[in-house]
Amino acid sequence: MRRKGIPDETVGRLFVYLRALLCLAEKGVETVSSSRLAEACDLKASMIRKDFSFFGEFGTRGVGYNVGRLITEIRRSLNLDKTVKAALVGAGNIGRALLSYPGFGKEGFQIAACFDSDGNKIGRKLNGMKVEDIARLKGRIKAKGIRLGIVAVPVSEAPDVARRLADAGVKAILSFAPCNLNMPRGVKVACVDLVTEMARLVYYS
Amino acid sequence: MRRKGIPDETVGRLFVYLRALLCLAEKGVETVSSSRLAEACDLKASMIRKDFSFFGEFGTRGVGYNVGRLITEIRRSLNLDKTVKAALVGAGNIGRALLSYPGFGKEGFQIAACFDSDGNKIGRKLNGMKVEDIARLKGRIKAKGIRLGIVAVPVSEAPDVARRLADAGVKAILSFAPCNLNMPRGVKVACVDLVTEMARLVYYS
Repeated sequence: MRRKGIPDETVGRLFVYLRALLCLAEKGVETVSSSRLAEACDLKASMIRKDFSFFGEFGTRGVGYNVGRLITEIRRSLNLDKTVKAALVGAGNIGRALLSYPGFGKEGFQIAACFDSDGNKIGRKLNGMKVEDIARLKGRIKAKGIRLGIVAVPVSEAPDVARRLADAGVKAILSFAPCNLNMPRGVKVACVDLVTEMARLVYYS
Repeated sequence: MRRKGIPDETVGRLFVYLRALLCLAEKGVETVSSSRLAEACDLKASMIRKDFSFFGEFGTRGVGYNVGRLITEIRRSLNLDKTVKAALVGAGNIGRALLSYPGFGKEGFQIAACFDSDGNKIGRKLNGMKVEDIARLKGRIKAKGIRLGIVAVPVSEAPDVARRLADAGVKAILSFAPCNLNMPRGVKVACVDLVTEMARLVYYS
């Protein structure tokens, strides 16, 4: 859900600010100047001051911005102030890593259900989460109010899994399968393609 | 290492073509028309034909492009025809998932060494790979001719680990830590920030 009143370019940068601010908070930093935040974000301090002016006053001249308050306000602007429930499909190695990733919980994401089609995995627990039959996906997603799907299955199964998620009403999909999912309009997809990232890095380095 | 003779915009698309072609190959597809490839890549067929003209002739009119030959030629153009050795730092859950990911080997990447600073992990095996002391990182990277570093440690340790990798001569770093690494010029960094990806998806869906 987009917010009105904040320009799209500012919204794009809010994600960058939030990430940097969370890193500072983790280090115990309580106040930050626009120039220090600019350095952490690789942006200009004047742009940061302008962007933050959309929220009113956070800074005290000579002291800087309050890190905790800024995080709270940016989260609210990005609709991240309530827990977002996600469904994980694929109880393999990537799935296990995601279930044990502490960052999700801290940032307001909760993997609320985990599905697989493999009879050897269904009914077992993966990092404390019961693996359910993918046949139950639609009903469970609707019952739990899940908005986000995570596709962590092999490439050959990914398009079918994504279709099932969209059919269950999920509007946002994070996929670890390096292929195009051809989703209907209205369903947003982000693909985490590690091999392509590495190939690009190596080519340009 | 960049190649001469192919425009930068074409190179950027070669990664997209390669990914789509690998998916087709996995499905057993042997020839593909520019229009089918265009659909898989979300690009125009005319652009694909123009891009492929840089390599000479791959297609047969009415039959399409040979998928295997195209993959070989694109890999060569992207310097991906030889195995690229990577060093993984962080023997945790992300590290384990990466070590068990079959996609790396298939696409010519090899995790050739794994390091951690935790005395409980050093000397143990993670998915068949011996975890080494991070104190030995520089020597091992030089001895093994490793070009790529993968940072899979907590945020608080990531900048130090990245500096060690750069100091050992690594020119490309893939980081799973959601923070700016402030690398020296000449070291390329790509950051896989799952929380930010998910936050963006949720906001725009």
